[in-house]
Amino acid sequence: MSSYCFGIDVGGTTIKCGLFRTDGEIVEKWEIPTRTENAGENILPDIAQTVLGKIESAGIDKAEVAGIGVGIPGPVRNGKVSVAVNLHWGETDIEGVLGELTGLPIKAGNDANVAALGEMWKGGAEGYSNVIVVTLGTGVGGGIIVDGRIVEGAHGAGGEIGHTHAEDEIEDPCNCGNCGCLEQVASATGVVRLAREELASKDPEEPTVLSLTDLSSRHIFDAYKQEDRVASRIVNRFASYLGKALAGYACVVDPDVFVIGGGVSKAGQPLVDILTRYYKQYAFSASKNTPIVLAKLGNDAGIYGSAKLVLG
Amino acid sequence: MSSYCFGIDVGGTTIKCGLFRTDGEIVEKWEIPTRTENAGENILPDIAQTVLGKIESAGIDKAEVAGIGVGIPGPVRNGKVSVAVNLHWGETDIEGVLGELTGLPIKAGNDANVAALGEMWKGGAEGYSNVIVVTLGTGVGGGIIVDGRIVEGAHGAGGEIGHTHAEDEIEDPCNCGNCGCLEQVASATGVVRLAREELASKDPEEPTVLSLTDLSSRHIFDAYKQEDRVASRIVNRFASYLGKALAGYACVVDPDVFVIGGGVSKAGQPLVDILTRYYKQYAFSASKNTPIVLAKLGNDAGIYGSAKLVLG
Repeated sequence: MSSYCFGIDVGGTTIKCGLFRTDGEIVEKWEIPTRTENAGENILPDIAQTVLGKIESAGIDKAEVAGIGVGIPGPVRNGKVSVAVNLHWGETDIEGVLGELTGLPIKAGNDANVAALGEMWKGGAEGYSNVIVVTLGTGVGGGIIVDGRIVEGAHGAGGEIGHTHAEDEIEDPCNCGNCGCLEQVASATGVVRLAREELASKDPEEPTVLSLTDLSSRHIFDAYKQEDRVASRIVNRFASYLGKALAGYACVVDPDVFVIGGGVSKAGQPLVDILTRYYKQYAFSASKNTPIVLAKLGNDAGIYGSAKLVLG
Repeated sequence: MSSYCFGIDVGGTTIKCGLFRTDGEIVEKWEIPTRTENAGENILPDIAQTVLGKIESAGIDKAEVAGIGVGIPGPVRNGKVSVAVNLHWGETDIEGVLGELTGLPIKAGNDANVAALGEMWKGGAEGYSNVIVVTLGTGVGGGIIVDGRIVEGAHGAGGEIGHTHAEDEIEDPCNCGNCGCLEQVASATGVVRLAREELASKDPEEPTVLSLTDLSSRHIFDAYKQEDRVASRIVNRFASYLGKALAGYACVVDPDVFVIGGGVSKAGQPLVDILTRYYKQYAFSASKNTPIVLAKLGNDAGIYGSAKLVLG
């Protein structure tokens, strides 16, 4: 019977590490730098070293460690990543290499998917097993969990919800090459796009605290909370796109709950409220009351989810 | 080691039955009427009787029967259906009751989901384990399979893709109560709606074989194949809605393959070709080449899928 496991969240600049008890209690967390030089050849050895060092310094019997879970910024299938641009990696057999280096069981997953698993295990969706996590940051990320398992997808694109088509009128391309993706209208940068459009087209006499020279998603949501009418139109449009999209996802996998994370989610309950209003408008009857809640784990979702991944 | 299993597809007027070998070869299929009187109280006893009768008449040892799979027109969770309007049923414990009556293992699922499983096992998606089946009939139905398992959803609404929002301009409600659902524009009745709009708004001088008095999805697709330009605009609009929707689903579960069935799919390869063109336009890069294929099992998909359901 194992007592401990490790959750590792590999980012482009730092590697977040967590030592957990198998019941989900975190014992210790720390970070090491991500050494991307020489095609990122040090990354997996560095993880092995920090984990083995922690086992020794904490006086843990290695036989009591269930294994190491690893979240990777790239498409992961069957323990391998085909490419991870931010780590300077080509195809890498994470589970094979790290297993060899540590002698421990390894499970690897995509970082956004793994963070979703963390929110299911110990975050906003605790107690549920069918979950859609939506991360509203610079882009829109997602993680889909069905019956407690991450949906990786046939091409590692499960949960790539930022690239569902949301708007026919947008003619400049998204980072993915398509035009009109959800993340062009419903991310931190997307809501700024909507604000620019609104400020350019509104009656110049209409008062607002927003200005073209100093726009951010935080400014927009702050103005919305202060009942600025221009900000209200922007946030309603944002919530309409996102609520409609969530309603569509519910017709596919019909989750128990939606969890909203990422920088934009700092807008808090007012964001959840308006999003819920639009979600209900578009949702299929059976799923109309599916709750939308805020993420709870913040930047620790990745280490929690990685730990859960290896526990199975 | 079991050699046989039964697949039962319960419809509002007939119950389709199949005796299968466990390798998927069909031994015999037959139908019995669905007796919906008295709140459908005879339906499960009738199924028990026909199955036990077949075991006896075929001279099969009951110990060689793996069990009975049953597809039901209603939302099924954990072997129970909460309501099945077409069968006149309220909440019914299908697995419990039928297990008691037959002494055999029972597995029950929603009929559309089970048909999807059939197409995965022995139909258009044979050899794959991540599949979206889209049934284009009077409405638009669907079944989602992830890692070989049906996605039932938290409220039995997994695969209810007919009710994803597709068009903001539609003001008359869908059967579900919402406005602008995919099945209002991409079913057999949906394409007729688009045709009515096109015929009403086109230049009266423009020639077409289509007429408002005799419109059906078959007429429309036949005219499309004959290069009727009005029909071409209608079918392009239909395929744009559906291709865009499929691209969105691929951002959620990223299947290996899409399978198109139902009456509209009789339009055949020209339908697949134009749908693929629009799908590629909207799909995320990683999923752009996901194949779209025709269903193969027709009305037998339900008995195949039910049989597969009980085999696990």
